[in-house]
Amino acid sequence: MESWVDGLPADVLSLKDRGLAYGDGVFETIAVRGGRPLLLARHLQRLENGCRRLALKVDPVALSIELEAYALRLGDGVLKLIVTRGDSLRGYATDPSAPVRRILQGNPPPAYPAAHAEQGVHLFPCTVRLSEQPLLAGLKHLNRLEQVLARAEWTDAQYTEGLMLDASGRVIEGVFSNLFLVRDGALITADLSRCGVAGVMRAELLFQAESLGIATDITDIPLEQLHQADEVFVCNSVYGVWPVRACGSARWSVGPLTRKLQTLARALLDA
Amino acid sequence: MESWVDGLPADVLSLKDRGLAYGDGVFETIAVRGGRPLLLARHLQRLENGCRRLALKVDPVALSIELEAYALRLGDGVLKLIVTRGDSLRGYATDPSAPVRRILQGNPPPAYPAAHAEQGVHLFPCTVRLSEQPLLAGLKHLNRLEQVLARAEWTDAQYTEGLMLDASGRVIEGVFSNLFLVRDGALITADLSRCGVAGVMRAELLFQAESLGIATDITDIPLEQLHQADEVFVCNSVYGVWPVRACGSARWSVGPLTRKLQTLARALLDA
Repeated sequence: MESWVDGLPADVLSLKDRGLAYGDGVFETIAVRGGRPLLLARHLQRLENGCRRLALKVDPVALSIELEAYALRLGDGVLKLIVTRGDSLRGYATDPSAPVRRILQGNPPPAYPAAHAEQGVHLFPCTVRLSEQPLLAGLKHLNRLEQVLARAEWTDAQYTEGLMLDASGRVIEGVFSNLFLVRDGALITADLSRCGVAGVMRAELLFQAESLGIATDITDIPLEQLHQADEVFVCNSVYGVWPVRACGSARWSVGPLTRKLQTLARALLDA
Repeated sequence: MESWVDGLPADVLSLKDRGLAYGDGVFETIAVRGGRPLLLARHLQRLENGCRRLALKVDPVALSIELEAYALRLGDGVLKLIVTRGDSLRGYATDPSAPVRRILQGNPPPAYPAAHAEQGVHLFPCTVRLSEQPLLAGLKHLNRLEQVLARAEWTDAQYTEGLMLDASGRVIEGVFSNLFLVRDGALITADLSRCGVAGVMRAELLFQAESLGIATDITDIPLEQLHQADEVFVCNSVYGVWPVRACGSARWSVGPLTRKLQTLARALLDA
């Protein structure tokens, strides 16, 4: 589907855009089903948080209306929203009064093999470490070279995702997913206050688990703890939940809590 | 002056460019005088190094010819070259055979007050710290949100540049400059193997200083060492050398080694 820039059809962007020059912006990747953007409130919440922390001025109400209008035309697929600080004059200095630029792109639904969800996936143990920057941690900003380098570490199709650690060796996330582990019935995921992207599906699963009385723990995860987990899964707001079967020498079976949360995620994404 | 994309006049860019999506690319900011790109060999050397480390395929000879052709039309000013990984299909995965995209932009010479070079500048002590990522350290890549956030810390025109430390509190650089200090006649600058941008003027000044028999030291610099320096200056390949007179509570006079290197830089940029 055609893209929109600031609400108008366009397939190109000003060369002066600060998104290009500095990665000065944030983005959201939103599943669209039957013309509806799914988990929209959570996507907008994260976007607003990112814009506030980067001092990007967005109008969330107008943005929400625009997203819904675009999704209606897209029908089924994936909507990518990029918000940048607009055109640069020169240098890093920002104009606090400048309006942001909104870019909407639509793609067909991704064709992931059904086996990823059914039998589970293998993670490639990436050697690229996530650097620690509390000012950017959790945000889905446009500075993603670490993910590009990590994703380039494997070409073997047996690996669906990669495992990323931080500079201190803590387990953080996948390259394009968040990661959960299950131990003694509790759901554990990484603290993302130093690095990582706080995913919308991660937030939703934590919320749903708490509603169901499942213990949740957002904490630092040493690699040994991952190896000792009863279950491991990755998630994002497009594919839902994939059980993780292997990473390096570690092996896991697909467990009941993973299946329960996978069913919840599927219900959200098939809505 | 009009911009070029892949050698052709253009003022817009494909919305699918990975420079926008992920900051997946590198750039150079090159002073142009009398139609000649200055310090071109050093700019190309850094660009090639960045492209090699990010696995971006550039043809340095063709690029050099293109830069020279563009500079000839620009006459006097600043040429910005951006090299991105071109259009994205979807997701972080790269196509190793894909050609890069070359973007050339021309601007008039910057109008910095002469006082910056003559009397020196005051640095704002930025609270934004540079995160440590050895895989990206030294490169002039497009992931520059830390610089954007740091530059947004001050609006008071008494500050010309900002001082940036790393996460461990070491002195690294300015927001758009490298930083040197002088102590007992030796020239000292930060080791940039964990973070920072290895500037072209920094490299040239180190080279020239060594040729003149001046002792140089590329090392970790604690903040106390900066405060105890005899002289401090910042540099880049557009403005040359500016003496630093103050940062926070610290004060320095403009010293002889700063003036000597400033004269050398001026000769390079007035060429």
